[in-house]
Amino acid sequence: MAFAAEQLARVKPLWDRMLSHRFLLETRDGKISGDRFAVWMRQDYLFVEAAIPFIAAVIPKAPAKHWESLAGVITALFKELKLFEERAQAVGVNLRGAPPSFTNHAYIQFLLATAYRASYAEAYTVLYTAEKAYYDSWNVVKRGLDKRSKWYPFVENWAGDAFAAYVQYLEGELNALADEAGAAEQARMAEYFELTTRYEIAFWEMAATGEGWPGVD
Amino acid sequence: MAFAAEQLARVKPLWDRMLSHRFLLETRDGKISGDRFAVWMRQDYLFVEAAIPFIAAVIPKAPAKHWESLAGVITALFKELKLFEERAQAVGVNLRGAPPSFTNHAYIQFLLATAYRASYAEAYTVLYTAEKAYYDSWNVVKRGLDKRSKWYPFVENWAGDAFAAYVQYLEGELNALADEAGAAEQARMAEYFELTTRYEIAFWEMAATGEGWPGVD
Amino acid sequence: MAFAAEQLARVKPLWDRMLSHRFLLETRDGKISGDRFAVWMRQDYLFVEAAIPFIAAVIPKAPAKHWESLAGVITALFKELKLFEERAQAVGVNLRGAPPSFTNHAYIQFLLATAYRASYAEAYTVLYTAEKAYYDSWNVVKRGLDKRSKWYPFVENWAGDAFAAYVQYLEGELNALADEAGAAEQARMAEYFELTTRYEIAFWEMAATGEGWPGVD
Amino acid sequence: MAFAAEQLARVKPLWDRMLSHRFLLETRDGKISGDRFAVWMRQDYLFVEAAIPFIAAVIPKAPAKHWESLAGVITALFKELKLFEERAQAVGVNLRGAPPSFTNHAYIQFLLATAYRASYAEAYTVLYTAEKAYYDSWNVVKRGLDKRSKWYPFVENWAGDAFAAYVQYLEGELNALADEAGAAEQARMAEYFELTTRYEIAFWEMAATGEGWPGVD
Repeated sequence: MAFAAEQLARVKPLWDRMLSHRFLLETRDGKISGDRFAVWMRQDYLFVEAAIPFIAAVIPKAPAKHWESLAGVITALFKELKLFEERAQAVGVNLRGAPPSFTNHAYIQFLLATAYRASYAEAYTVLYTAEKAYYDSWNVVKRGLDKRSKWYPFVENWAGDAFAAYVQYLEGELNALADEAGAAEQARMAEYFELTTRYEIAFWEMAATGEGWPGVD
Repeated sequence: MAFAAEQLARVKPLWDRMLSHRFLLETRDGKISGDRFAVWMRQDYLFVEAAIPFIAAVIPKAPAKHWESLAGVITALFKELKLFEERAQAVGVNLRGAPPSFTNHAYIQFLLATAYRASYAEAYTVLYTAEKAYYDSWNVVKRGLDKRSKWYPFVENWAGDAFAAYVQYLEGELNALADEAGAAEQARMAEYFELTTRYEIAFWEMAATGEGWPGVD
Repeated sequence: MAFAAEQLARVKPLWDRMLSHRFLLETRDGKISGDRFAVWMRQDYLFVEAAIPFIAAVIPKAPAKHWESLAGVITALFKELKLFEERAQAVGVNLRGAPPSFTNHAYIQFLLATAYRASYAEAYTVLYTAEKAYYDSWNVVKRGLDKRSKWYPFVENWAGDAFAAYVQYLEGELNALADEAGAAEQARMAEYFELTTRYEIAFWEMAATGEGWPGVD
Repeated sequence: MAFAAEQLARVKPLWDRMLSHRFLLETRDGKISGDRFAVWMRQDYLFVEAAIPFIAAVIPKAPAKHWESLAGVITALFKELKLFEERAQAVGVNLRGAPPSFTNHAYIQFLLATAYRASYAEAYTVLYTAEKAYYDSWNVVKRGLDKRSKWYPFVENWAGDAFAAYVQYLEGELNALADEAGAAEQARMAEYFELTTRYEIAFWEMAATGEGWPGVD
């Protein structure tokens, strides 16, 4: 079995927990409050922004043949930020209205530390897992969400065909990197796969609870 | 006012919250359970271990005159690990008995990402704040703890004179770095000071609650 | 005086030596041999390619307001590579016909090490100085080169209005970064300015002599 | 055949060229001038100093079981610097009398860029190759040098039993890393082996010629 499929099978209990998170189900069923969704919007906006230095830090470790596609990811992230800004304006949310929450800050540090310290294949594992998680998560929402919902443009962005093709491309490249890796590096890639899944779940949990910083807020 | 004193004054509400955290007060008063303290031991062991790559990653950014003292910090961290191992053996705790908790993992990522991405003065701010927080926190415990307590050696390690002198040295160097920095870098240093304080509080909170990963455990 | 102007005045003897390098004067006067120019083309192609991971590694250190313009530099570098490939095909040069020469390899290492280890303002100094050197150098050539020369497209690329505007933009931002920097960081920026000028001169020297690796070729 | 032996066999023509470099033979035969040796001392002092941030930058990528031995390398480098300072005082050389030469600066950038950008096994290849080159090179000198020579302490440092044991240790670890690596990483390790050999030769060439910066000095 190819690496990505093998990992998805291995972490299935966590993945299922992610896909059945109440934030996704409530959004799908139109039960999420505007305030709660605005919390997610603000935090995810900051996260998408922080993904830019993450991808940039990964490029110098990539083989030259990957540089153009990674630079394309940065371009796509700038477009996502603009999508957030348009949506925020449409629904009256101030995207700069809050600093990163604890979980968001932590996840961003995880991306950056990995980009700098880990091998390219390990960092690529984090990129794939985060994008795949978003694709699958928003597809859960898409299956039930009313197309007239004001949140539909987000759903379309991550659950649509273009994003599907991108995640498919990442999966193929990840599998190729895993094939090239020795056993020790493959084991670390598997660990990063699970860690990223855990951070994704933590992110939905943060969106659902509106958490602040532990012991402070 | 020198930079460190100024920051300590500025974040005083957070600092006070840290120093009155129930984990510290219960440890001071001999009310902490062995299991609860063992949670902290395991997690702090992993954190001290992770401080080694943090310091190492900071060295290449340091002026050459700081290299020897930073290499000395690494030597001291190896000694701390051995202190943990001796204590753990004495009280029958398996230090490798658990993976890093969410907050611990997050704090480690914050150290590493800062070491790589931030300026030297910013990374030094994180080092100082974390060490100062430990010095002050364990001094709270020391003021009440029975000297025959099995946890006393930890208290002595971080609340004793040698550690005091080290924190004092760091403070002098931090102040010199702040004096040399422009206004924009100083503002970022202040932000790192507060962020580190927040991560320290989160760490005590984790020790007190025995938290797992959000949405999973 | 603004920082860039001050530095250009300070390193003027080196800068003049660069602008009067025989490789530039012979290219301007149409006296350069095809083989000699092909050496330069191959090496500069590899250098432009290596500038992509350099810029990428700088992005995570940049303030967010610089990310989009730095991502634009990466896009421009991909276009430059395509210009090289078109030119190379037109004149029958195999761009992959040689590994990086010693000086080229060294200069690339200098870019990457700086991007990772130095502060953002220091790395930006290297970027500006290298681009300004190219702008000034190719303007020397442009002043004499026959417009029908097969090398003219290169000259146009780096001596034209669009590149002039880009170098002007970099200069303004560099001056702003220097204004924000403390005295110690400014002194290091000045050192990077001179070092980059020295590497630029070494590059023209390598192009003129077709050097290999010391003690080997 | 183990990786290191395989690479030493593969680059044998380069390695032989290094070991028969005139700087080594003239030093062995007592024919090197004091001034020429002083050039080497000053440059190598700066290089040994720069090896400290190189090793430090490698530590965060190393498996934890390697941290203590790498920290030991840093300690050994501080001792080497003190050996240089004692020797310099004894023979009246000012170690801070010159900036890094071009080749020295380039080699240092190569170390740092590799530490940051390459995988751990690749960076370890550079460490091993540079140390092995020093061991073999100074053994050439030792075979002929008069023990009363004022340069003998250097020869002893790198050609003696303690350094031999250290290089032997590095070789065992390098072979283990190569065994663990996939084919693509092994190919990059082989490339770094050769590149480091080339930089070593360039360093002896610089010592022999007293070169400055190309096109300037």
